[in-house]
Amino acid sequence: MSIKALLLDASTYRVSGMLRIVGPDEPFLGPGRIELMERIAATGSINKAAKEMGMSYKKAWMMVQSLNRQATTPLIITQTGGEQGGGAQLSTAAQELMQAYQALRQRFEEFLRQETQNLLRNE
Amino acid sequence: MSIKALLLDASTYRVSGMLRIVGPDEPFLGPGRIELMERIAATGSINKAAKEMGMSYKKAWMMVQSLNRQATTPLIITQTGGEQGGGAQLSTAAQELMQAYQALRQRFEEFLRQETQNLLRNE
Repeated sequence: MSIKALLLDASTYRVSGMLRIVGPDEPFLGPGRIELMERIAATGSINKAAKEMGMSYKKAWMMVQSLNRQATTPLIITQTGGEQGGGAQLSTAAQELMQAYQALRQRFEEFLRQETQNLLRNE
Repeated sequence: MSIKALLLDASTYRVSGMLRIVGPDEPFLGPGRIELMERIAATGSINKAAKEMGMSYKKAWMMVQSLNRQATTPLIITQTGGEQGGGAQLSTAAQELMQAYQALRQRFEEFLRQETQNLLRNE
């Protein structure tokens, strides 16, 4: 029995999912950190980015520290204020990382699209 | 700058992720429900399966109802006792669904393996 035959209204179903890049000791990159970096780029502030995501400043600051700690060059550059909520921006390396991640994400979306087609195929 | 050049110890990183099959109104299948079905198959009991997963019986029962509600034929067959915790087993359709999901999961693992190689490639 195919999955299509098994579902009551198969044409409304899809394969969905989530990707992460993980290191040996801690996560490196996933949907939350990508959104945080996008919002830091847009607002110029870790504090504003955190507020927009309904996240504590402390959690956002720890994510920023984790990202920077794992990289050969800082990804988020914090200006005066630092832990107290001064300005922040993405480094060139971070912008290139975001592009590489978006390309990975696009290949994943294509995988999900193919698998959704597989799901709806008669076997 | 490649992701490899950007990470302090790139060879220890990998691309990881999660898959779901989702309907228009509710989730259908993901890691939690797959594990629940595997444990129901192994224990013959929704209650035992739930306990093994540290999940309330109510939550497991609602997952079972959700799975059965979305399928053309019951996936989990409950014997006398029903909501009170009687025996349960997977239907033939559910066993075929599990096989189809494992095949999908294998294709995803291959995608992740390829993307982990991409990650470690010099660009």
